[in-house]
Amino acid sequence: MSDLQTKASAVKSCVIELSKKTTKQKNDALLLIASELVNQLPFIVEENKKDIASGRENGFHESLIDRLALTEDRIHDMADALKQLIEINDPIGELIDSWERPNGLQIKQVRVPLGVVGMIYEARPNVTVDAASLCLKTGNAVLLRGSSSAIHSNTAIVKVIHDALKKSDLPLDSVHLVEDTSRETASQMFKMNDYLDVLIPRGGKKLIDTVVAQATVPVLETGAGNCHLFIDETAEARMAIDIAINAKTQRPSVCNSIETILVHKKWADKYLEELVLALKNSDVEIRADKKIYAKINGILAATELDWETEFLDKIVAIKIVESTEEAIEHINKYGSKHSESIISEDDSHVVEFMNTIDAAAVYHNSSTRFTDGFEFGFGAEIGISTQKLHARGPMGLPALTSTKYLLYGNGQIK
Amino acid sequence: MSDLQTKASAVKSCVIELSKKTTKQKNDALLLIASELVNQLPFIVEENKKDIASGRENGFHESLIDRLALTEDRIHDMADALKQLIEINDPIGELIDSWERPNGLQIKQVRVPLGVVGMIYEARPNVTVDAASLCLKTGNAVLLRGSSSAIHSNTAIVKVIHDALKKSDLPLDSVHLVEDTSRETASQMFKMNDYLDVLIPRGGKKLIDTVVAQATVPVLETGAGNCHLFIDETAEARMAIDIAINAKTQRPSVCNSIETILVHKKWADKYLEELVLALKNSDVEIRADKKIYAKINGILAATELDWETEFLDKIVAIKIVESTEEAIEHINKYGSKHSESIISEDDSHVVEFMNTIDAAAVYHNSSTRFTDGFEFGFGAEIGISTQKLHARGPMGLPALTSTKYLLYGNGQIK
Repeated sequence: MSDLQTKASAVKSCVIELSKKTTKQKNDALLLIASELVNQLPFIVEENKKDIASGRENGFHESLIDRLALTEDRIHDMADALKQLIEINDPIGELIDSWERPNGLQIKQVRVPLGVVGMIYEARPNVTVDAASLCLKTGNAVLLRGSSSAIHSNTAIVKVIHDALKKSDLPLDSVHLVEDTSRETASQMFKMNDYLDVLIPRGGKKLIDTVVAQATVPVLETGAGNCHLFIDETAEARMAIDIAINAKTQRPSVCNSIETILVHKKWADKYLEELVLALKNSDVEIRADKKIYAKINGILAATELDWETEFLDKIVAIKIVESTEEAIEHINKYGSKHSESIISEDDSHVVEFMNTIDAAAVYHNSSTRFTDGFEFGFGAEIGISTQKLHARGPMGLPALTSTKYLLYGNGQIK
Repeated sequence: MSDLQTKASAVKSCVIELSKKTTKQKNDALLLIASELVNQLPFIVEENKKDIASGRENGFHESLIDRLALTEDRIHDMADALKQLIEINDPIGELIDSWERPNGLQIKQVRVPLGVVGMIYEARPNVTVDAASLCLKTGNAVLLRGSSSAIHSNTAIVKVIHDALKKSDLPLDSVHLVEDTSRETASQMFKMNDYLDVLIPRGGKKLIDTVVAQATVPVLETGAGNCHLFIDETAEARMAIDIAINAKTQRPSVCNSIETILVHKKWADKYLEELVLALKNSDVEIRADKKIYAKINGILAATELDWETEFLDKIVAIKIVESTEEAIEHINKYGSKHSESIISEDDSHVVEFMNTIDAAAVYHNSSTRFTDGFEFGFGAEIGISTQKLHARGPMGLPALTSTKYLLYGNGQIK
């Protein structure tokens, strides 16, 4: 058997045992993992250095090296995150609903683990701990498949997790890492419907698109955010500009940052130059439609491609619109249904925008940067779903669960 | 543009308009469809005759001809089902949850339509009305793709639906039928991620497996039921036998009927012959393990394949087990995670069975035949999900919905 098959079988074999562990047993295991991460910190850092060295050899960009790096601080952060996860409510076993049918059948709907989660991710080795711990907390077994560039770090972390699990009540096989990082193995994993209940890809658009295109296992799609800010005619100038700067510059590389600002022409007549100046002062490159770049010096013309692009950088596209309808039309055409915001003091425009925009999160008078499991108060985040099935928007622990009906009778037949 | 692309574009174009229709507007449209079905009954029956004639020409089995046939009674039943659907609560717009964050951001989670549903189904033309009406009730547009054997009936029904929609407030393009029933067109439809939010296959295992294997659009899998009845040592004999007969024979062709009966050896010592006699009296063919067929005359030996097979017929496999654990092990090995039942008066065995069996519906002292949206009291049924994401078990209207977060602020930045 291949490494993949051996590990998939091992992970699957402990699903039932794991599903019956108590919250205390699961939390105790998480605490043991946190301790073991700190105990074995020098080992993890040493192994991580091997990945960094080969990254440098392969000419990785510094930003990629940074994502790969596991410093002492970062490992302590990982251990702290585990302790926070312990505090969060365990959704497993929750009674979602219960009722009685006229024939006397008692029906209960309860929350259960999904079973086996397949996690496919890129360079960041902290995802290894993150994914494993979220799965264990929700009673799921997990098959991890990280990238080859982080293989030493990931192998080390899983070794540490196994050392912790040996001391815990959870089965050792609850967590495994596929060490064969070839593309062929990944493609096989995408089609392991007999072993995996769900695949969660975490990484860039290309990875996610590949998984969606190839997988026969159901996928929880997280991903791209081509988000917009619409500044309506009646928007308060200071609020609109502050939110624009925050939503664009506070962390441009993440999915809930904005990529395009749509400005109502009447607001633009009064405040556009002020907005542009503020963006420039924050080192944001502006690509604007004709009405703007013709009027203001030093601004590039936006192309069709700019409306479609998630820049993930200090670049913003700006467009003048004539109405809320035009803003909505633009967003529903180019947006990725992630996070969209309207700044307005006009109730009817706000209602129209909130109801008509098709996105996971629609904001009024707020930055889009709050689309995040922690900011929503979930205490944990699996990712931000951009699909409509199962979970939409920031996903907390319940996104890693399914349900089951229990029916109690006394001889009912149909 | 191909027929498929033209219709997919048309259906997608009305998603936003449709999502904003009120419950009354949607119910009025359903009532118009019900009336129009009855008004145009002779036309539908005429068109249906063409499908029946070519079915006969192609040597269809009588049971298939029966599935294809639209009699006057069946068309009246379709109209009545529409009227019942009107009475069911509209889930769209439901406030699922709302809370305030420490920064003052108000978060509301509301229920919204999925968008466009792609429905792939086999011979039964009544699915055309059923699928269209469930989608319209939940504010979804729907692209229908039935089988070539029912093309005249399906085209006629969609014509009738369009005639009704013309008189309604809903967009005509909310419902379209792909008239090109080639395999190539179906394969294209499976990958229309830009147009379809979900694919729902309804039909045999082969159809569902094909959709799961080929689709890149998320699939709501419904399907196979290899269901079991476990008669424990302490089972009341009369109850166990009545339930066995009901779960096997009341409608053998459906997914929630049982295929295997597991009998505790101590119960078998006393009552097995009685059970076998009852099954034989109901014309059920028995395939049993060695311990049984060696003892009782006229029973076939079960093969490995019998434990795996969904007979969908008056055939049952019987196995003697030594314990609840052995029953659970057999079910978790061979079952399709659909519906499983234990007949027992021993509380600890019942708890063990209900908690350990991994299935959509787990029963105590009841027939499995109740796994059904109507029997659960949902008032409608999209199908019975055998997957763990999005929906599990009988799916009512909420399975055709997604959610959206609405966030209200007063200038919040991160």
